[in-house]
Amino acid sequence: MENLRVALGARAYPIHIGPGIIGAAELYAPHLGGGGVAVVTNEVVAPLYAEKVKRALDKAGGQVTQVVVKDGEDSKSWQTLNRVFDALLKARLGRDGLVVALGGGVVGDLAGFAAAIYQRGVPFLQVPTTLLAQVDSSVGGKTAINHALGKNMIGAFHQPLAVISDVSTLDTLPDRELRSGLAEVIKHGFALDASFVEWLERNIDLLLKRDAAALTHAVRKSCELKARVVAADEREAGERALLNFGHTFGHAIETGAGYGAWLHGEAVGAGMVMAAELSALMGDLKKTDVSRLRELLGRAGLPVRLSSQGTALAPERLIELMAVDKKAAKGRTRFVLLESVGRAALRSDVDERLVRQAIVAAAQ
Amino acid sequence: MENLRVALGARAYPIHIGPGIIGAAELYAPHLGGGGVAVVTNEVVAPLYAEKVKRALDKAGGQVTQVVVKDGEDSKSWQTLNRVFDALLKARLGRDGLVVALGGGVVGDLAGFAAAIYQRGVPFLQVPTTLLAQVDSSVGGKTAINHALGKNMIGAFHQPLAVISDVSTLDTLPDRELRSGLAEVIKHGFALDASFVEWLERNIDLLLKRDAAALTHAVRKSCELKARVVAADEREAGERALLNFGHTFGHAIETGAGYGAWLHGEAVGAGMVMAAELSALMGDLKKTDVSRLRELLGRAGLPVRLSSQGTALAPERLIELMAVDKKAAKGRTRFVLLESVGRAALRSDVDERLVRQAIVAAAQ
Repeated sequence: MENLRVALGARAYPIHIGPGIIGAAELYAPHLGGGGVAVVTNEVVAPLYAEKVKRALDKAGGQVTQVVVKDGEDSKSWQTLNRVFDALLKARLGRDGLVVALGGGVVGDLAGFAAAIYQRGVPFLQVPTTLLAQVDSSVGGKTAINHALGKNMIGAFHQPLAVISDVSTLDTLPDRELRSGLAEVIKHGFALDASFVEWLERNIDLLLKRDAAALTHAVRKSCELKARVVAADEREAGERALLNFGHTFGHAIETGAGYGAWLHGEAVGAGMVMAAELSALMGDLKKTDVSRLRELLGRAGLPVRLSSQGTALAPERLIELMAVDKKAAKGRTRFVLLESVGRAALRSDVDERLVRQAIVAAAQ
Repeated sequence: MENLRVALGARAYPIHIGPGIIGAAELYAPHLGGGGVAVVTNEVVAPLYAEKVKRALDKAGGQVTQVVVKDGEDSKSWQTLNRVFDALLKARLGRDGLVVALGGGVVGDLAGFAAAIYQRGVPFLQVPTTLLAQVDSSVGGKTAINHALGKNMIGAFHQPLAVISDVSTLDTLPDRELRSGLAEVIKHGFALDASFVEWLERNIDLLLKRDAAALTHAVRKSCELKARVVAADEREAGERALLNFGHTFGHAIETGAGYGAWLHGEAVGAGMVMAAELSALMGDLKKTDVSRLRELLGRAGLPVRLSSQGTALAPERLIELMAVDKKAAKGRTRFVLLESVGRAALRSDVDERLVRQAIVAAAQ
């Protein structure tokens, strides 16, 4: 098992990564406060791992309640959040209680947000069971639900007490979701660490074969890179925005194609190609580095063009969607661009014609 | 105008108190971030003060949207919160936008909580227009809505950027609400400051006549006392609980009599008498000091007995209601008791028989 720490002063916390650790009572025990435990999970994850987690919590001395929500993005809603609160209140979870988020990004966002505002905040643990959640959403304290007028519009920064990432849970993950998670791993490399990109180029096949050692390293390295950025800028005032490489385009793709057509990581992958093409058009990035990104994404089995996924979206429509995105500051869309492999930078001085050209270039 | 500061490090903020300051553009100007302003108020306060606040914000350069909710505790609901979000999103309020809570405690709690979780947190100003809000709920950063299974169960700690307390707005406050606010003022004295109790004993008649200078002093002193406690214990891990003097009994009275039968301050007043009687039974407080409390509350026109308000509640029922209150820690109800006038202390070792006796004594 590997351990690392997110350095956030009084809110610092450990991340434990390794195969077969989901049932380790000693990882849960330090976080039980005596006020009961509520495990929030979904109907796909519950039959696979809920019993293991419950046994570990029982052994650690917790009084465990279970809340099972539906699978999928629709669970990030007021309705489901209220169902979680009903359960916490019926179980009389106190302020010294603990919420455990067991599942992927949706469960983590929902349960984390519930913990953030239940009785003005109770502690929680992240136990991510998808690659996307292990390398990205479980780290950094962002929690949220969706609103009819926008994704993640209602939420809170609420750091977990710990993250327990069992890479063995990825054995039950569908291929497409594994690849979607790899897109965020690749993002961490291209945005922040050139040597990690090289490691990924050498080990992508092992990752696709779900080799436990390779997965442990990829999750660890991703968390390390993300944790460094989060520690420097917890509330996304500046540097943390670099983690959004590929996301401005990616969100527009997700929205334009209709939620569900693209998995989040897939959209981020195609979005990164657009952002890289734009970086090249701005004169910052070498064309050969754009090709390196395309190639690695392709080897990971990710769609690099809109057409690969059967989506037809005019460049104008994508640009329009980006303008309404919440990352738009004072009327101007901000882009995370690459200066080189492993070095992202924030730019808001981007000519819209270049954005259009980049979208066209990405489609080639 | 008097100014004081809540010392909370990076989250420190000023409180401005005085007559006729609600329309002072210079108090709003420093807090406008360029991302639009939403004034959240209710249908009673809007016709009285919304135009003045809007003009001040316009003058300060803000783009102002207004959200008017219904008057009363029922507005602390999911439904109303969602209506606020609809309005903020339609107005495209950004992360650098500002929410202004204009009204009493309900508006402050609702708008403050909306600001706490809209786009994971935007800044807000408190512009309290009731005495209760000016001396208590607008200071300290507690925000919340209610859940069917409990009051203030869902919420956040979110400090305002500033509090603007115009005591002239109290001229339009119904007598009963003024007296309800005075209960919290009296609470601050009895829990924390004996010399303030003496000042209140000399000036209670001026306060009831809504003398601007007396009100300014009472609001200032209350905020000062509360701010000191909040600065020492922002998230209510210890000392802050002292501010709940009278509240454990008070909440039980509110719930037992049905919400609305007792105003919050009225219930806290009667609750303080019970807590004081209990303190005397525990041997901590002199009987003459219990009488001082009763007398001051009586002069403020507050009901000191359940029967004064026509409420009949058996001691057993009150005890039962206190046990389910969220302040119950690990099965034992904690009480804020008085060691002397101006000195409250937290006790969890209270014999239930004494609690029953205290309730009976308070009814005499």
